[in-house]
Amino acid sequence: MATRGQVITCKAAVAWEPNKPLVIEDVQVAPPQAGEVRIQILYSALCHTDAYTWSGKDPEGLFPCILGHEAAGIVESVGEGVTEVQPGDHVIPCYQAECRECKFCKSGKTNLCGKVRSATGAGVMMADRKSRFSVNGKSIYHFMGTSTFSQYTVVHDVSVAKIDPKAPLDKVCLLGCGVPTGLGAVWNTAKVESGSIVAVFGLGTVGLAVAEGAKAAGASRIIGIDIDSKKFDRAKDFGVTEFVNPKDHDKPIQQVLVDQTDGGVDYSFECIGNVSVMRAALECCHKGWGTSVIVGVAASGQEVCTRPFQLVTGRVWKGTAFGGFKSRSQVPWLVEKYMKKEIKVDEYITHNLTLAEINKAFDLMHEGGCLRCVLNMHA
Amino acid sequence: MATRGQVITCKAAVAWEPNKPLVIEDVQVAPPQAGEVRIQILYSALCHTDAYTWSGKDPEGLFPCILGHEAAGIVESVGEGVTEVQPGDHVIPCYQAECRECKFCKSGKTNLCGKVRSATGAGVMMADRKSRFSVNGKSIYHFMGTSTFSQYTVVHDVSVAKIDPKAPLDKVCLLGCGVPTGLGAVWNTAKVESGSIVAVFGLGTVGLAVAEGAKAAGASRIIGIDIDSKKFDRAKDFGVTEFVNPKDHDKPIQQVLVDQTDGGVDYSFECIGNVSVMRAALECCHKGWGTSVIVGVAASGQEVCTRPFQLVTGRVWKGTAFGGFKSRSQVPWLVEKYMKKEIKVDEYITHNLTLAEINKAFDLMHEGGCLRCVLNMHA
Ligand SMILES: NC(=O)c1ccc[n+]([C@@H]2O[C@H](COP(=O)([O-])OP(=O)(O)OC[C@H]3O[C@@H](n4cnc5c(N)ncnc54)[C@H](O)[C@@H]3O)[C@@H](O)[C@H]2O)c1
Ligand SMILES: NC(=O)c1ccc[n+]([C@@H]2O[C@H](COP(=O)([O-])OP(=O)(O)OC[C@H]3O[C@@H](n4cnc5c(N)ncnc54)[C@H](O)[C@@H]3O)[C@@H](O)[C@H]2O)c1
Ligand SMILES: [Zn+2]
Ligand SMILES: [Zn+2]
Ligand SMILES: [Zn+2]
Ligand SMILES: [Zn+2]
Repeated sequence: MATRGQVITCKAAVAWEPNKPLVIEDVQVAPPQAGEVRIQILYSALCHTDAYTWSGKDPEGLFPCILGHEAAGIVESVGEGVTEVQPGDHVIPCYQAECRECKFCKSGKTNLCGKVRSATGAGVMMADRKSRFSVNGKSIYHFMGTSTFSQYTVVHDVSVAKIDPKAPLDKVCLLGCGVPTGLGAVWNTAKVESGSIVAVFGLGTVGLAVAEGAKAAGASRIIGIDIDSKKFDRAKDFGVTEFVNPKDHDKPIQQVLVDQTDGGVDYSFECIGNVSVMRAALECCHKGWGTSVIVGVAASGQEVCTRPFQLVTGRVWKGTAFGGFKSRSQVPWLVEKYMKKEIKVDEYITHNLTLAEINKAFDLMHEGGCLRCVLNMHA
Repeated sequence: MATRGQVITCKAAVAWEPNKPLVIEDVQVAPPQAGEVRIQILYSALCHTDAYTWSGKDPEGLFPCILGHEAAGIVESVGEGVTEVQPGDHVIPCYQAECRECKFCKSGKTNLCGKVRSATGAGVMMADRKSRFSVNGKSIYHFMGTSTFSQYTVVHDVSVAKIDPKAPLDKVCLLGCGVPTGLGAVWNTAKVESGSIVAVFGLGTVGLAVAEGAKAAGASRIIGIDIDSKKFDRAKDFGVTEFVNPKDHDKPIQQVLVDQTDGGVDYSFECIGNVSVMRAALECCHKGWGTSVIVGVAASGQEVCTRPFQLVTGRVWKGTAFGGFKSRSQVPWLVEKYMKKEIKVDEYITHNLTLAEINKAFDLMHEGGCLRCVLNMHA
C-alpha cells in the first residue's frame, strides 16, 4: 500500500475528557513497529465498556483516548516480525490478546493472556511504551489495546484474529466482544448441559447471546429476567422460554426463581453489572450444584456479598471475560459458525450509523430498543 | 439382642440449655421404627459444629438435645424394612444421608441428600416427626441426625455407613466428619492436580486433612497459614511445605501469598470459618484459574464479600460439605484406605477421654494443642 511506513492522517472520535461529547478529529496514526499491525477499521460497534470508561467512572480510564473495541477491518500494514497476518487480511481486533507463550496462554485453563496487558492497561504500545495516535502532535492514549473508533488503528499482533475474507465486516464486527462473551459464558465457563434450567439476568446483547448459547446447549428452560418488560418479546427469538420481571414481585427475585424451579436453577448468568443482581443470580441456583457466572461488569469499588453457606451447600460462583474464548484461535471459528448460520449476529444489530454520528450512537445505548449500533467508519 | 424392641436406658450427655455444661443423664432410647437403626456408639469425637450449636450461636439449634456427629459403633437393632445393615454390623453414623433416590442423590453432582433433611433439621425422626430420646418422659431433640454423645442412638437407615468389622472403632470414628471433609475438599470439590500450588488457611484437623489430601494429589507446594505458630511443626507431618503467619506481615495475607507464588495459588481452602479469611483465600488465587473452596463454617448471618472483578478475571469460589463424599458409599472406602495405611487417622487424635469427661473435652478444643479428642462412650 502507498501508506505503508507513512503516518496516516484519518478521522477518529477522540474522548478528550470524561463525560464530554466525543470529537471527530484528524488523527495522525504512526506506522506499526515490530510486532504491531495497523488496521483500517471498516465497522465498529459500541459496547458498555466504552460508555463506562467514557463516563469517567473507570478509575483506570486515561484521557484523551480513542475508545472502541468491537470492530472489524483490513490490515493496512504490519511491523517487523509479524508473520501471522499481512496487508489485505480481514481481521477482528481483540482486546483479549492470545500470545500462545505466556504462563496464562500455556496453562490451558484460561483465555486471559499476560503478554501485552501492562502496555494496553497503560494506553500505550509495548515496543516503546508510547502511543501511535496523536492530534497535532499531542499524544492520545490507546484503549483496551484496540481503539477502534478510528479509521485506522495500531494493535499488537497477538491481538489480531484473521478471519474469512468472505465474512461481512459490517456484521462480524460484533464478534469482537458482546456476542462471544454471552455464548462463551455458557459454552466455556459454565459448560451448560442439555436439559439444564438456565436463568439469564439482563436481556441486552450479552444476555441474549447467553440465551442463544443455552438454547444451542439444549437447555430445557431459559428464564429471562429484566426490569424492562419491553425486552421480553425480542428475547423469545433468542431462546428465552419464560420471563420474569422483578418489579412484578414483592419477594426477592432469587426466591421467586427458586419457587418457580423446584429448588433453583442449574445455571445463572448476570449480564447487567449490578452487584445486588449478582447476589440474586447466585442465590437462585439449586443447592448442591447450581453455578452462577458473573458476566456484567460492576462499577469500580463495588463488592458482591453472600452468605458462605450458599457456597458450602454446593453452589459455585464464577465469572467470565470474553466468554473464555481464546481470541486469535476462536474468533475465526465463531465467524465460520456465523457463515454457516449456526449463530446469530445480524439479529443483534438494531441501528446503523456513521462515525460522525457516534455521540448519537452513545445516546441510543440508553434506549431500551437498542442492542448493538454499528458505525460505518468510512461513510 | 435382648434389648431388641425394648426401650434402652443408657448414659448420654444432654445439652439442656445453650452454653451450660452438658449433663450426663440416664436417657431412654426408644426402639427404631421403620427405616431406622439403633446403634451402640462406642467412640465419639468432638467437632466444632457441636461446640457451635452448644454455644447457642446457631439459630437453628434446638434444646434440650444430644449433640455429637463424629462416631463409630455397632448396630443393636433395626426397624422394619431396613435391609442394608443388621445387628452386629460395624457402622459410622453419617450426618450427610445418602438415600440414592432423591433428586440430589440421583443428580450425580452432589453428596447432599434431601431425603431426611427436614426431619433432621427439626431434631426429630422422619417416621413420626418425634424424637427417640427422652429423660424421665421429657423429649430430647436429635442433632444432625446422629446424636452420638449417647451410648445408644437412633438414626435413619440412609445415614448409616457399614464398615469393615476389623477397623478399630476408636480411630475410624474420625471418618464421620473432619478428616473426610478435608480430604474430599481437595479430591472431590477442588480436584487438585499434580504440580499445583495449594494454600491451606487454618491448620486444625480439617486444614491438616486438606494438606494431606493435597500431598496425595501431588501438589508441588502446600502453604499452611495459621495465626498460631505452634501449629506449624505438626503440620509438616501432614504435607505442609511452607508456613505463613499473617501476624508476621503488615500487608494483607492475600498480597503476601500472591507475592510468594508469582501471581497466586492454584487452589486455596478456608478451614477456619472466618469470613475475612474466606475473602483472602479467594483473592490469593491466581488470576485465570485459581479456585477457592470454603470449608469452614461461619457464624450465622455473616457474609463473604469480594470485588466481582476477582471472579470475572477467572477465579472460582466454591464450598464443600463433608468434602463432597457420598456417605454410605464412600465412608467404607475411606475406612479401607485407612486400613491400607493410605490415609492418616491416628495422627489426628491428640486426646482420649471418657463420656463422663465430655465437658473437659470441649474445653480442650480451645487449646492450640488439641486436634481431635475421642471419647470412650462405655468406659
Ligand atoms: N465479562 C465480559 O467480558 C463482558 C464483555 C462485554 C460486556 N460485558 C458487560 O455485560 C453487561 C451487559 O452488557 P449488554 O451490552 O448486554 O448491556 P445492556 O445494557 O444492553 O443490557 C442490560 C440489560 O439489563 C437490564 N437490567 C438493568 N438493571 C436490571 C435489574 N436490576 N434487573 C434485571 N434487569 C436489569 C436492562 O433493562 C437491559 O436490558 C455490561 O455490564 C457489560 O459491561 C462484560
Ligand atoms: N464444610 C464442612 O462439611 C465442615 C465439616 C467439619 C468442619 N467444618 C468446619 O471447618 C472449620 C475447621 O475445623 P477444625 O476442626 O479444623 O477447627 P480448628 O479450630 O481445630 O482449626 C482452626 C485453625 O484455624 C486457626 N485460625 C483461627 N483464626 C485464624 C485466622 N484469622 N487466620 C489463620 N488461621 C486462623 C486456628 O489457630 C486453628 O489452628 C470449622 O469452621 C468447622 O466448623 C466444616
Ligand atoms: Zn465490550
Ligand atoms: Zn499469552
Ligand atoms: Zn463435624
Ligand atoms: Zn438422597
